[in-house]
Amino acid sequence: MKNKTEIKILKNRSIIKFEGKDFLGEVGIDGRIFKALTYARISVGVISQQAIENGISVLVNESDSEKAVNCLIDEFEKERKSGKVSQIFSINNVSVLGFVAQDFNKIMSELARNNIFPLILNQIAAENRINIVVTSLQDEKAKNIIEAEINSKPKTVHLAVIGHGKVGSTLIEQVLQNSKEIRNRKNLDLKIIAVANSRKIAFNKKGFNENWEQDVLVAEHESNMDSLIQFSQVNQLENLIVVDNTASVDFVKNYTLLAENGFDLVSSNKIFNTLSISEYRDFRRVLNKRNKKYLYETNVGAGLPLIDTIKLLHLSGENITRIKGVFSGSLSYIFNNFSVRDEKFSTVLKEAMEQGFTEPDPREDLSGNDVARKLLILARELDLSNEFSDINVQSLIAESLLNLDRNDFLNNLDVLDAHFDEVKKNQKENHVLRLVGDLHGDLQQEKGELDVQLISVPSNSALGQLKDSDSIFEIYTESYGENPIVIMGAGAGAKVTARGVFGDILRLSENK
Amino acid sequence: MKNKTEIKILKNRSIIKFEGKDFLGEVGIDGRIFKALTYARISVGVISQQAIENGISVLVNESDSEKAVNCLIDEFEKERKSGKVSQIFSINNVSVLGFVAQDFNKIMSELARNNIFPLILNQIAAENRINIVVTSLQDEKAKNIIEAEINSKPKTVHLAVIGHGKVGSTLIEQVLQNSKEIRNRKNLDLKIIAVANSRKIAFNKKGFNENWEQDVLVAEHESNMDSLIQFSQVNQLENLIVVDNTASVDFVKNYTLLAENGFDLVSSNKIFNTLSISEYRDFRRVLNKRNKKYLYETNVGAGLPLIDTIKLLHLSGENITRIKGVFSGSLSYIFNNFSVRDEKFSTVLKEAMEQGFTEPDPREDLSGNDVARKLLILARELDLSNEFSDINVQSLIAESLLNLDRNDFLNNLDVLDAHFDEVKKNQKENHVLRLVGDLHGDLQQEKGELDVQLISVPSNSALGQLKDSDSIFEIYTESYGENPIVIMGAGAGAKVTARGVFGDILRLSENK
Repeated sequence: MKNKTEIKILKNRSIIKFEGKDFLGEVGIDGRIFKALTYARISVGVISQQAIENGISVLVNESDSEKAVNCLIDEFEKERKSGKVSQIFSINNVSVLGFVAQDFNKIMSELARNNIFPLILNQIAAENRINIVVTSLQDEKAKNIIEAEINSKPKTVHLAVIGHGKVGSTLIEQVLQNSKEIRNRKNLDLKIIAVANSRKIAFNKKGFNENWEQDVLVAEHESNMDSLIQFSQVNQLENLIVVDNTASVDFVKNYTLLAENGFDLVSSNKIFNTLSISEYRDFRRVLNKRNKKYLYETNVGAGLPLIDTIKLLHLSGENITRIKGVFSGSLSYIFNNFSVRDEKFSTVLKEAMEQGFTEPDPREDLSGNDVARKLLILARELDLSNEFSDINVQSLIAESLLNLDRNDFLNNLDVLDAHFDEVKKNQKENHVLRLVGDLHGDLQQEKGELDVQLISVPSNSALGQLKDSDSIFEIYTESYGENPIVIMGAGAGAKVTARGVFGDILRLSENK
Repeated sequence: MKNKTEIKILKNRSIIKFEGKDFLGEVGIDGRIFKALTYARISVGVISQQAIENGISVLVNESDSEKAVNCLIDEFEKERKSGKVSQIFSINNVSVLGFVAQDFNKIMSELARNNIFPLILNQIAAENRINIVVTSLQDEKAKNIIEAEINSKPKTVHLAVIGHGKVGSTLIEQVLQNSKEIRNRKNLDLKIIAVANSRKIAFNKKGFNENWEQDVLVAEHESNMDSLIQFSQVNQLENLIVVDNTASVDFVKNYTLLAENGFDLVSSNKIFNTLSISEYRDFRRVLNKRNKKYLYETNVGAGLPLIDTIKLLHLSGENITRIKGVFSGSLSYIFNNFSVRDEKFSTVLKEAMEQGFTEPDPREDLSGNDVARKLLILARELDLSNEFSDINVQSLIAESLLNLDRNDFLNNLDVLDAHFDEVKKNQKENHVLRLVGDLHGDLQQEKGELDVQLISVPSNSALGQLKDSDSIFEIYTESYGENPIVIMGAGAGAKVTARGVFGDILRLSENK
């Protein structure tokens, strides 16, 4: 444990900029600058000149800045006329931070990750003494980051949780329950500084506690991301992550803005990754340019390690030839139960809804769209250019039910029963129904084949033996040959999804 | 695509350091310094003074440095006597780099990751003009990193591959085959700049090609890591990763040295993670302090996503209650085949060796040590403090064979046959043999129960249905309840292991 080191900070300073051409290394210029300032009785702090692309920076008290500019303008009147000195001006509202750091590397990257780069940096390597000049809008943020590093205090990560339905609220509970443990084990301090729903957003600079729901109830800010961005800037918050636990088509429109304003993103919301391939790729370009990250492991298979596995296999040149399985925990539960129990389809469907396995509107699941989305997301991880419209989806709902509003639909579930009883009867002996997603074809081409179908399989097959709401994913590759990589387990439910989102948050935080 | 921007570089410069107390912001000092230098006809470049902790830095041509120091010593004779000026000295061999960068953040972190931090940094934010002063030992490395960023050229990652047996050579082939693709897709340039075996190490600054094996044959350097470190420094190589594909007990002793010298590590070698818990944790402290990473996904389950999955579940507070399965691809192959085929145990064992499933010395597998190591590695991911000696291992080899040298052992394999025929016969109907690793007990305590045993299971159970050399891992957790997360697939073989190592290399490279 190092001793606490103090960070000295000088506020209310100005940088006087002196710029011109062709006097690079010319003898005397510097001397004249300081003579002039000396005569004007101006005390000078950090001074810095660019050896390449000339320009001299002088640090003075903000109160002296106008005087300093004027006396230099007088001193170099001739050179200004001749154009040799192009401009003399001041940058106000800067602060100087002085500190001693053993390991400056980490501080550099921490500052950089938080969009802080010193206007001037001065380092005496031998003694690890560092001075940096930053705009006073960032001085507190810089101070916190540096303090955390040099005193090896926990690094604070600031979370904004959007959507506090089943997954969102479970995530908040999980974070609150484990933050102490994570502080001890990983020296990470996870703070939830914003919680939003579609109407309101609540802020808490210190981080919300168990009473967060109350705080959201009484929140007065209207829900919008500009206020979140403003809040993060006014309070100079470092290490920002927005967590999207909504199913909102509108909210994803904020992703680009958020990345451009220094937020990393974690999302259980599938919408963005299933927009047009051009939007999909444009956003990745923004992320890359801004050095921001976007993680969405829970988009497919909830907490199961699907996306990351496929990403790495593909990137390392492994030829993935097929991905097949039961992708939807909700439809897994529905057909695993409906196939073997003597119940109406609508009864099983209601159970699934009550247990929170389905999307808010179960038609998302029954339409096959949810599985189709997951299939598309996996295809795009393989750099395939498929669009949603390319997917061959077998919907499980009669046209007549598609256009009803949610409540009318929920009151007419039994309309589905006759059809599914029929399908169930018409199977071979010892067969069961499974709703399967299948990505196949020549995956080296620009597009693959994406099918979502209800099929009947032998009950003793791997697919047939699936239980409860488990999902199963079979990843076929060249090296793995006949036997695919199989990843199986609960693929739905608030608990495991929230845990997966939490995992993404930690992935990001550890690399922050 | 941005236009190519040029980086200007001034070599052979010196920094003149002027240090003292109590003249912070005092009027006149600076003026006198420059007057003195001006009279001495010394042209001055970057100048920089610390506002906090006084000290002034003046940049001059190396040829002027002595003269500059002397003339300042004369000018401030009085202050030096009074102790107000503590020291005046020069730092030689520095270079100045000047460039224009839109996104300075990334450059900052890239430099930091590569242990480069400017002695002096000067940035004119308004115009994105930056000057940095670095020691000339790092100027080329800095130039490469900056160039890659501002011209969005591929980022070069330099790999040193230690061990070129089955896994190592397969990895090299995979990297060579895919490097072009990865350059295009990820803007990463993977270069294998060193290949070593226990005797020799071959270097190639440009990166090895298909003929790497020839180059290693004719290599003259004796294999040791000091020469690798020296090579990386002399050639100023950035983004360094050492890949350990040996099974060497000795090589892991280099890990700490390598991390301290700026290398990240990727390893398929299990030894380090099974050393004493104190060594295990000390090394993690070094990694953390140096901001270096160590990945070893292939230590358990070859290419299967085990370690990362368990790590994140655990860290996110998921209560993992048990991990059980067939951990060894080689023993899986051996018992999957021996259980159902009418062959001698030794015959099946030889097959496994020929197919490269076993460790170089198959006793590593049969002793149960290999499974025990994997079990211990998983236990430690859960922050359990178990030592190797805590593991309850059922060895499969008679004492008499343990102390033979490798060849004698291989000539006496049939000694094993009688015993295993016996075990096979004594099973219940429709049962098969499986060598199972089992981590259980109260995993919230300091230590867990670790068992490695040969058991007989129903052939229609999940374990019983295992095929070929597949491994299966069942991860039981609180949220997942009765149904574990199951990860299954080829758990051994050079191809899939190399692919897993490749995955770790890419994980590291993307965060570089």
